[in-house]
Order: sequence, then C-alpha cells, then structure tokens
Amino acid sequence: MMDSRLTLDAILRRASRVYADKRIVSRGNDLAVSAATYAELRPRVARLMNVLRSLGVKPGDRVATFAWNHARHMELYFAAPAMGAILHTLNIRLAPGQLRFIVDHAEDAVIFYDRSLAPNLRPLLERPDRREAFICMDDGAPDVEPLPGSLEYEVLMAEADDAERFIDADENAAAALCYTSGTTGDPKGVLYTHRSLYLHSVGICMADSLAISECETVLPVVPMFHANAWGIPYACALTGASLVLPGPHVVGKPLADLIESERVTLTAGVPSVYTVLHQYLRQHPHDISSLRSLVIGGSAAPAALIEAWRRDFGVPVIHAWGMTELSPVGAVCRLRASMQDLEPAEQLPILAKQGIPVPMVEADVLDESGAPAPWDGKTTGELVVRGPWVARAYYKEEGAPSPLTDDGWFRTGDVARIDPQGYVELTDRKKDVIKSRGEWISSVEMENAVMGMPGVLEAAVIGRPHALRGEVAAAFVVRRSGTEPITGADVRDHLAATFARWQLPRLKDIHFVDALPKTGTGKFDKKALRAGLQAS
Amino acid sequence: MMDSRLTLDAILRRASRVYADKRIVSRGNDLAVSAATYAELRPRVARLMNVLRSLGVKPGDRVATFAWNHARHMELYFAAPAMGAILHTLNIRLAPGQLRFIVDHAEDAVIFYDRSLAPNLRPLLERPDRREAFICMDDGAPDVEPLPGSLEYEVLMAEADDAERFIDADENAAAALCYTSGTTGDPKGVLYTHRSLYLHSVGICMADSLAISECETVLPVVPMFHANAWGIPYACALTGASLVLPGPHVVGKPLADLIESERVTLTAGVPSVYTVLHQYLRQHPHDISSLRSLVIGGSAAPAALIEAWRRDFGVPVIHAWGMTELSPVGAVCRLRASMQDLEPAEQLPILAKQGIPVPMVEADVLDESGAPAPWDGKTTGELVVRGPWVARAYYKEEGAPSPLTDDGWFRTGDVARIDPQGYVELTDRKKDVIKSRGEWISSVEMENAVMGMPGVLEAAVIGRPHALRGEVAAAFVVRRSGTEPITGADVRDHLAATFARWQLPRLKDIHFVDALPKTGTGKFDKKALRAGLQAS
Repeated sequence: MMDSRLTLDAILRRASRVYADKRIVSRGNDLAVSAATYAELRPRVARLMNVLRSLGVKPGDRVATFAWNHARHMELYFAAPAMGAILHTLNIRLAPGQLRFIVDHAEDAVIFYDRSLAPNLRPLLERPDRREAFICMDDGAPDVEPLPGSLEYEVLMAEADDAERFIDADENAAAALCYTSGTTGDPKGVLYTHRSLYLHSVGICMADSLAISECETVLPVVPMFHANAWGIPYACALTGASLVLPGPHVVGKPLADLIESERVTLTAGVPSVYTVLHQYLRQHPHDISSLRSLVIGGSAAPAALIEAWRRDFGVPVIHAWGMTELSPVGAVCRLRASMQDLEPAEQLPILAKQGIPVPMVEADVLDESGAPAPWDGKTTGELVVRGPWVARAYYKEEGAPSPLTDDGWFRTGDVARIDPQGYVELTDRKKDVIKSRGEWISSVEMENAVMGMPGVLEAAVIGRPHALRGEVAAAFVVRRSGTEPITGADVRDHLAATFARWQLPRLKDIHFVDALPKTGTGKFDKKALRAGLQAS
Repeated sequence: MMDSRLTLDAILRRASRVYADKRIVSRGNDLAVSAATYAELRPRVARLMNVLRSLGVKPGDRVATFAWNHARHMELYFAAPAMGAILHTLNIRLAPGQLRFIVDHAEDAVIFYDRSLAPNLRPLLERPDRREAFICMDDGAPDVEPLPGSLEYEVLMAEADDAERFIDADENAAAALCYTSGTTGDPKGVLYTHRSLYLHSVGICMADSLAISECETVLPVVPMFHANAWGIPYACALTGASLVLPGPHVVGKPLADLIESERVTLTAGVPSVYTVLHQYLRQHPHDISSLRSLVIGGSAAPAALIEAWRRDFGVPVIHAWGMTELSPVGAVCRLRASMQDLEPAEQLPILAKQGIPVPMVEADVLDESGAPAPWDGKTTGELVVRGPWVARAYYKEEGAPSPLTDDGWFRTGDVARIDPQGYVELTDRKKDVIKSRGEWISSVEMENAVMGMPGVLEAAVIGRPHALRGEVAAAFVVRRSGTEPITGADVRDHLAATFARWQLPRLKDIHFVDALPKTGTGKFDKKALRAGLQAS
C-alpha cells in the first residue's frame, strides 16, 4: 500500500477541488456577513503561509490565535499546520494570569487576534521579556484600538507572495496545541498531530458519529479556541459541508437569525447555549425548520433540555462527550436500530447518556483497584480511553506523572458506568463527586434532576464541607423567567422522588441566584461556587 | 498523541464488547440459516488463531480461503490477520490454470475451503510439489467428497486451545492478499495492510460514503473472495451493523427470501445481480420494504437499472466505483444537497456517474501527455488515484514496471472525466475503448445506451478489428424475457439518438445471445467475446 500521509493540507486540497463552490459564511463583530468558497480559501491559505514565513515563523513554532469563530480563523487553521507550524488556539476567556502563563509556556512566536478582543490581550504587554509579534484581524470594531506595534492581517496578506508551498509533513508531526481549562492546577497543553486531527475529522463524519457530510450546513457555536471547535472546521472541509461561523454573536436573536437565514442544518455547542436559545425561540419564533440536529457536549446535556428541543421544535439532540485530551470527541449518543420504535419517554434516558465510543476510540471503566468494572449499566468507576486521537502526555510536562494507566489507557478523571450495549454514562467528575457519610452522591445527577423542573433554567450542585458527614449537597438554582417562582421546598420535594433522604440538600443549602459562574469553556465553574461558599 | 495502531484485532474487540448482541446471520449450501453474535464471534476467532498456530502457520504466512460468504469465512477474516498471518481470498471462479498459478505464486500454507466447492480445487492436487494443507468447512454438501487428506474445520476448532492471543502487529504489517481477475496477463496480487483495511473500513462508514452504521442490516452479495467483499465485513464489525451472509445463494428466490426474512436494509453487488433480482421481484413480489439502499459497483451500473429500482421499488441505488488495487472503494455517488430537489429524470444522469472520491482518496485525470486534464465534465483522460488504501506495487513484482506515475499516482487503466463538482464518470477501460478512424468510441456508454432499451436485459460492446477503420463496434445483446423481441434495426435506431452515424454498429455486428460470458468477478468477459469473434 502507498505510504500516504494523513496530513491537514490534504483536507484543504480536497475541499478546494471537490467542493470548490461550497461556502464558508462568516460574521464579524459588527454583524456584517461575508462568504467565501473552499476554492477561494486555498489561495488565501497559500498567501497566509507566506505571511507566516515572512514573519520568521519556522516549522515547529507556535502560531497563536485569540479569536472568535470566523473565516480568518479558518485560514489560520490550515495555514499554520500546512507550513509546519503549530496552531495554538488561545482561549479568549482566560483570566490575565492564566493567559500570561500559557503564552509563556507555549512560547508563541506570533499571536493573531481579533481587534474587538484587543483589550483582553493587554495583560500580555506588561511582561518585560515578551517576544511574540501581534497581528490584528479587523473584525469590525472601529472603536477599539489595536495593541501598540500590531501588524495588520490584510496588509500582510496583500503584500505576501501567492506561491503555494505546503511542507511535506510527517503525519505524526505536531499540528495544533490547545490548553485545558485548568480547573485544578496550572493549565496543561495538549499537542495534536496531523494524524490525530485527520483521523478525528474522519471519525466525526462517520454515520454513527456526528455524520458530518456534504448535505449539512454546520454552525459551530463551540468556539474555535476550544478543542478545535470539536474538529468541525476540518470535518466540514473534508466533506464539503457548508460552514457558518457566527463570530462573537452566539446568543439569542443573532444566533436565531443566522440559523434561519443560512438554513443551518446542524449546530453544536455546550448545553447553556441551547438552554438560552430554546427560551429565546419560544418567545420569538423563527423559522428553524432547516435544523436536523443539535449536537450538545462540553458538559452533560440535561434530559429536560433534550426533551424540550424534541417536544417544542422537533429537533433531535445528539449528545456527545469529549475532552481537550481527546481532540475532543470520545463518544456520541445515537439510538440503536432496536430503540427507534420506543416511545419518546423511553428514549429520553438513553439520549441523556454520553453515548457509544466513537469508532477508533476504546473506552472502559476501572474500579478503585484499577480492575475493569462490568458493563452492567450500574457499576461506576473511572472512565479510561485509548485511541489514535487520545493524548499520552501534556506539552512540555515530560517529567510529570503520566496521565496514563500502566497499560496505556488515558485516565479521564470522569466517573462513569457503561451499559451492556456500550453506552457510556458519566455520573460525575471524579473531583466533583460529593462524599457524604462515606457514600457518594452524584452532583451531575442531582443537577440534571433539578434542571428537569419547569421553573428552573440552570442548576449546579457541589459538596459543602460538613463536620459530621464529610460533605453535604448544596444547590445553586437559577429560576426560569416567566414561570411561577419555585421555592427550596419545591426543589427538595422534586429531588425526593429520585434521591434518598440523606442525599437531599437542606433548605439552607438551596441557593437561588441570578446566574451561575461559568468557566472559559462554558461549564459551571464549581471552583468559584466552592470559593463563594467558603467565604460566606 | 498515543501511538495507537490501526489494526484489525481492534475492530473485533470493539464489535465483541460494544455490539455484543448484534448478529451475523449465515446461510449454508443447504439453505440452513445459522446466527451468531459478535460476542460469540470473538472466542471463535481466538480458537481459530490457535488452530492456525497448531497447523504451523507463522506470522507472514498466507492463509488461503476458497469459500462463499458465510460465518466461518468471517472468522478467518479476523483470525488470520490477528495472529499475524495474511488472509488470502482465492476466487472460486478461477480457471484451473489461474488457480494453480495464484496458489503457487502466493505460496499458501493452508487453504480453507467449502465442502461444496471441493471439486473446483481438484486441479491443485495434480501439482507434484504442492505443500499446502487443506481444511474443509462443511457447508451442508453431504454428497460432495472432501479433498483427500483434508482436515475438518470444526474438529480442529473443538480440539484447539481457547486462550486469546492477538499479536502486537504494526499497523503497516500485511494483513490480506487478493489477486486481480487478470483480464490481461497473469493475475497480480494486491497486499493489504492492517492500516489500509482499517482506514478503508472507516472510510466506507462515513455519511457521504456507504454510511454503514449500527442501524443497517447488510447483505453483501459481492463475494468475500472479491476485494474483501468491498470491505463490508470489517465495516459492519466496526459499527455493529448486522451482517447477513448468503452463502452460494445469490440469485432470484433465495436472495429475495433472505432480504425479506432478515429485513435487510442495504445490499451490495455487481449490476447483473440486481438486474436479475429486479426481474425476479417484478414477477414474484416480496416484502422488501426494509431495503433502504442498493450499492452497485464492480462495473458501471446502467442508468436504466438505477431508474428501474427507483421506479418499481422506491429503492435508491448508490453507485460506487473501485478496484482490487483500491481495497477496493474509490468513489461513491450520492447527490449533493443542491441536487436533492431535482426531478428524478435530472438526477438520473448524475446517479449513473461513479461519484465523488471517498475522503482520503484523491483522484485526477491525466491527458495523453500526463498533464492533469480540466475538471470540466468533458475532457477525458486516464483516471489516477492516490491515498492510504491504494496499492503502490503488486505482490512479489518488485522488478516489474511500476503501476504509478512518476509523482506517485496509481494508474487505474480507466478512462474518465471529472465534472466541476468532483463527480468522476468512467467512460471506458483504457483497453476496451474502441478506436475507429482514429477517434474513440466508449464501449461502456454504448452498452449503457443499449441496456436502456426496455427489451434488453444485458448488453456488451467490443471493438471488432476492421481493415479500413481499425476497429468498429460490435454489440452482444441479451433480450429481456416477456417483452416484444427487439431487432438489430431497433438497436441501431435507439443508438442513433446519442451516437454519430459512423460510431453505430452495423446490423451484422449486432449479435443476439442467450447469455453473456462473465469473468470471475461478474464483469462482462470481453476477452472471451473478442476471442469468439475472431474464431467466427
């Protein structure tokens, strides 16, 4: 067989020839919509590779981005790896200290940033030994000053040579870098290779996975700075799916308008995005009849949210699970053939599971002794995974303890059970499990139960230190507007149907709040909630 | 990223755990139907690996099969590669001389054969220096004597150790071997690796490709001795699709009965199978409502056949193109999103093309100077391909001229054009093109035109040597039973609508025959037709 390498430039070549006329639609900070074809993308990438070279970027150097989802970000997705550099997507929501830590740790050579985001990058200017160059991408933010000394993206592009020179990369060469959100300790970098990103792209186009195909128009709400937007940009180029990049406008009206105007068929993001969108669409009907599926991941999709989209809009939710360390998709929940004829109420508990490991990814659960637990749908343990797009170590952490088991499985830190049909169900993050009287309470299950109440918009549950019991459950609840205000007693009564009495939060541990703190990746920030508790 | 190898044993492990309860249904020579689950397959494969070891088979040795599509053949598909040997699928329709040539060339260590096929193997016994062992698989043929000295499959299995020992294979290690049908010269072997077969399996599960998934029940009519049954057995195991293996019964009533009783959703094979099945089903209605798609490849599917299945049974035909040298799938024809709303009559000419190159496969057409031809849907040239499941050389043909171009593309020997949307359309085999007065006539286009006549069941067109013109077209036509008998003049009139006058076959070159000779892989045997012409 041919020694044919799985490199990202091959995806670009395919898109530009086979799907020459398919489009990438992109919206700026100013809501202006532009469109380019895959055929037009390719010479732009060729120029951008030459821009990088002219800036002194060498193969292996890190090329950072600090940007929303838009067409220029897509150009960087291909240009950096295709000239041998490493695309490093910086999370725009990082706290200043984390941002400085990551840029210093990655030793970024250049940072391409959105003009609208310039203020967020100012903390980097204070470092005396900074060495990176800044390139400003004007996304329609005339009132925002670029960083001092910035170069201008379109000026560089206009000046660049247009000769197309891909490097002849090894498929195991590094192509991209993304740091985990770092809810404990310092952020850690995950280094992707051409091979891992290529295989991941193929994996999410499989019919039983996200099934991305030419027929889809895909709007990734999940940010391109978060685990490669779940691999969607590369998968769309591989299959010629139309890509709709929403810029910073990912809530309420602008999102609903874009789905309607671009006839989006598939959109993907974290649960809170679709909780808010659902509420918005109920109040402001739009024509979303083009939507064929909603991919929800990043954190567990509450069953109530899955049911609400089915009931109110007839849109099936595809629940997916992943991690930055998994490129990121690890499991996708689709009904088996034998489940197609079940009643919706019977399907719902299945759809709320994280799903079947994507082909090429193996999963298992280990008990406390490290032995595999049975796949009985009951026994929980730590979820471990392995496969060609699973990390084996963190970037520049060679001396650190390995995240792998002795026989090479990646420890996810998630507590899960697997049922006899291979469906993985996460019950908690290992560190979020509440330990009360020596027994475990799943914070995720309790959150989902509370979020199943009609009067609740969002809820998070954490463990509060308790002298006698070790920990007790504490709930933070956001009431849904336009409904009868619920009380702590309502929450307890509702939970009593599925939880033991000793597991229930006391009334004084049920807090009604206006909003929940979120991490940079849109998950409930339990560290912040815990800190708030301890301070009170 | 992990150094995770793409090896076939991983597909078996996945099937046995994630899809433990999904079934492989298998029918014997005697029509007896048996079923086993993927969970049951795995210990059988473990035993079979030990059988191979007990027979002295070493990693790298060739393990030949001479068998129809059935469960034991599936066991061999996994056991041989998973213990490091090379699965060599012998074509049961080979002429004795070719069979001897291939077995000697491959140096098979063992041959597993169906009892019902024992007579076809007798030519091997005459070789004085034969060294291979024979293992008989009893497929319900009590009247057929096994070959002298044969061992019995189930006896060996019962005696074997059941300890599961996979070898730790490199993904680039050889896993399987298949010889091309060899319409010119000696048969040539194509050696597949674990990696190429794994990636090919993933490729045909992509949504835009054959979309094999857990929801499908797949009946491969295409034989497991022909390019790995187009990779379907491995793809089904990878995704947990149910597999229905029809044994030798792949025409008329037994095939229709099996589709009905097993609720088959997808079946795949060469055009003639579905021409015959269509005719049978028109006369003998069956409940084939489970069928969601028909994959037709191996040779060009006539538009009339595609249209007949849509019109009469509402079953869409997915046209696919491949070669043994491509593992074998190279292109799959699906309508683009923008074509979904066209009228059936507008869709038909698109569906009759060979389709879009499957992701990971690159295709192009080269003109006579070797330069790429434009993708304008008009300019024809030789189709070239490259990718991770494309052969770079033939087995033990190191000294022979390379089948690759100087820059590494595989020359398919097919003449094709590619349209602006990437659809490949084969116009002929390079060697079947008719050259008349210095111009080309596409034998395939003329065949398809003749097969579009209601009174025609099958037709083949070849070039007949002609003193003045070089060659002229000669047609061999099988009339459809139950229709008004057509004449040579009818054929000429019909062709005159699409072909120039000089291209038409003369009346004396239109031969009505009872049947067309076919090669071992079910294609029209043009070599035999040419030989017949010259002899007449």
